[in-house]
Amino acid sequence: MNPEAEKILAGDPLAGARLISLLEDRDPLGIEILKDLYPLTGKAFLIGITGPAGAGKSTLVARMIDHLRGRGLRVGVVAVDPSSPFSGGALLGDRIRMQSRATDRGVFIRSMGARGRPGGVGRTAREAALVMDAMGYQAVVIETVGAGQGEIEVSRCVHTTAVVAVPGMGDEVQAMKAGLSEIGDVFVVNKADCPGADEMVQLMEQIARHRRCAPDAWCPPVIQTVAVQDRGIDGLIDRLFQHRLYLESTGRLAARRACNQLHFFRQLVVDMATTQLLQDSPELASIQKELGHGGIDPYTAAEKLLKRRLPA
Amino acid sequence: MNPEAEKILAGDPLAGARLISLLEDRDPLGIEILKDLYPLTGKAFLIGITGPAGAGKSTLVARMIDHLRGRGLRVGVVAVDPSSPFSGGALLGDRIRMQSRATDRGVFIRSMGARGRPGGVGRTAREAALVMDAMGYQAVVIETVGAGQGEIEVSRCVHTTAVVAVPGMGDEVQAMKAGLSEIGDVFVVNKADCPGADEMVQLMEQIARHRRCAPDAWCPPVIQTVAVQDRGIDGLIDRLFQHRLYLESTGRLAARRACNQLHFFRQLVVDMATTQLLQDSPELASIQKELGHGGIDPYTAAEKLLKRRLPA
Repeated sequence: MNPEAEKILAGDPLAGARLISLLEDRDPLGIEILKDLYPLTGKAFLIGITGPAGAGKSTLVARMIDHLRGRGLRVGVVAVDPSSPFSGGALLGDRIRMQSRATDRGVFIRSMGARGRPGGVGRTAREAALVMDAMGYQAVVIETVGAGQGEIEVSRCVHTTAVVAVPGMGDEVQAMKAGLSEIGDVFVVNKADCPGADEMVQLMEQIARHRRCAPDAWCPPVIQTVAVQDRGIDGLIDRLFQHRLYLESTGRLAARRACNQLHFFRQLVVDMATTQLLQDSPELASIQKELGHGGIDPYTAAEKLLKRRLPA
Repeated sequence: MNPEAEKILAGDPLAGARLISLLEDRDPLGIEILKDLYPLTGKAFLIGITGPAGAGKSTLVARMIDHLRGRGLRVGVVAVDPSSPFSGGALLGDRIRMQSRATDRGVFIRSMGARGRPGGVGRTAREAALVMDAMGYQAVVIETVGAGQGEIEVSRCVHTTAVVAVPGMGDEVQAMKAGLSEIGDVFVVNKADCPGADEMVQLMEQIARHRRCAPDAWCPPVIQTVAVQDRGIDGLIDRLFQHRLYLESTGRLAARRACNQLHFFRQLVVDMATTQLLQDSPELASIQKELGHGGIDPYTAAEKLLKRRLPA
C-alpha cells in the first residue's frame, strides 16, 4: 500500500487535503492512492444537502456539524456551493464559526468551486467524500447548490438527500419540482419563522407526495428549521438517520450503493474517454483544422475522429 | 440532398418540428439531414437569454418576439427553461399570447425540458437553433434557466448573451457572479419598477465591470425593462444588435463562430463516444458484473473498458 494511503487511513488531515488536491487536478498518483483506499471505504453515512442559492444551506450545515459532533460522530463536509462560506462567499458569522471548527480534529471541511468541466464536480465531490470516508469520518455531508443537474448529481453520490428551501422561493422550487421530488428523502423549510413559511411547507409536502408511498416505501418528511437560531436541527438529523435505518432494514442501502457505484463507473468512463479523445494529437489537430476551414461539418468531424480512435 | 432538408430550406414548419424531434431522439436520420443543412446555416443572429428562475425571462422573450417581428424579422425561439410558458409552466396570460403567435408563420417556437443526459440540452438547443437558421429565421432566441452550467452552455451556442435578473435576486446573482461576468454581453434588470431595482442595477453594473473595458472591448450595458408593461424592450433589442454590429466590425464574429463550432464538435465527440462506450456489450456487462461483486474498483473498471475499446 502507498504510504500516503496509510496516512489517510490513520486520519492524517494534511495527507487528506493533499490527496483531494491531487484528485482535483486529475493527477494519476491521486487515482493510484484512491484505488488502494477504495476497498476500505463504505463505512461513512453520506448525506447530500441541496437546494436553491440563498436557502441558508451553509448555515444549516454549520449547525449540523455541531449536532453531529454532539452525538460523538466525526464529520466530513464537501461544499460544492460557490456561495458557501466554506468556499469564501461567507456570512461573516458563519465563517468565524467554521474557523473555530478548524481546530477540531473531528471535523474536516473541503470546499470546491462549482465551475470547471461539466460533470467534473460530481466526480471530485464523490472522490473527496471517499477520502473522508477512508479517513474515518462517520458522517460526510456534501453541500451543493441545486440548480439543473447539480441536485441530481449529488443524490447519486450519497445515501440520503435533504432538499432545502426558504419561504419566498416558490418560483425556483416550482421550476425544480420534478427533479426535487425524484431525489428528496427529507425536505427542509429553513427560515421557518419568516412570512410565507406555511406556503413553502405546503409546496414541499406536495412535492414529497409525488413519491409514491407504497406500503414499505419511504415517505419523505417535511421538516421546519431556523438554522441561525439553531432550531429544528436535531429533528432534521433524527430524520436523516431514520432514513438511513430504513435503507438498511429494507435492504435498499446495498441497492443504492450499487447504483451509485455504477453511476460513478460510467462517469469515470466518460471522463477518461473525453480526456483521451480530446488531448492534443496530430489526428485531432488535422480534423479541427479541416473543421475550421469549413471543409467538414462538426458531425462528420466527430465521426471521423471516433472512427479512427474508437473502432466498433 | 435529402427531400426533408429541402422542405426545411423552404421554411416548412412541420418539417422543422419533425427534424428537431429526430435530433432530440438522437435519430441518425436527423443527423444526416442536419449534415446536408449545416453548410447553409450561419445567417441567423443567435441570441441567448439566461438568468435565474423567476426573472421573467419568458415574458421578456414574448415581448422580444413582438418587437423583432415589428422590425420585420422572422423569429425562432428555443426555450430550454422548464418553467417557461413555452414548455408548459405557464403564466396563463403569456401562454395565450404565445398561442396567438402560433398562427404567425414568422415565428417558430420550440421548447425542451432541461433534464436528461448532462450536457444533452446544450447539444439539442444548438441543433434546434441550426434548424431554425436553415429555415430562414433571422433572429433565433435561446432561452435557458441560468444555474450552474446552464448559462455557460448557452453562451457557447450564441453570438450575444443577455443575462436577466429581477430586484430581490441578490443572493442568486451573487452566487452566479463569476459565471455571469464571463458570459453577459448585455445585462437586464427586469421588473425595474419594483422595490430594490436600484440595488440590482448596481450589482449588475458591478458584474458588468468585471469584463475588462480595453479600448476596443465591448463594455456590457445594464438595461432596465418592465416586460409585463412592454417597457424597455426596444432599447434592449437595440443593444443586442449593437453588440452584433460590434462583433462584425471588429472581426470578432468569425472568432466567436469558430470557437462555438469547435466547442460543438468537442461536445459531439464526448456525446458520441459516451453512447458507443456505454451501449450494451458483452465487455461492458462483464466489467460491470465484476464491479458489482467488488472484484474491482470503479477506476480499474473504467481503465479496463477503455484499454480494450480505446487503444492509445
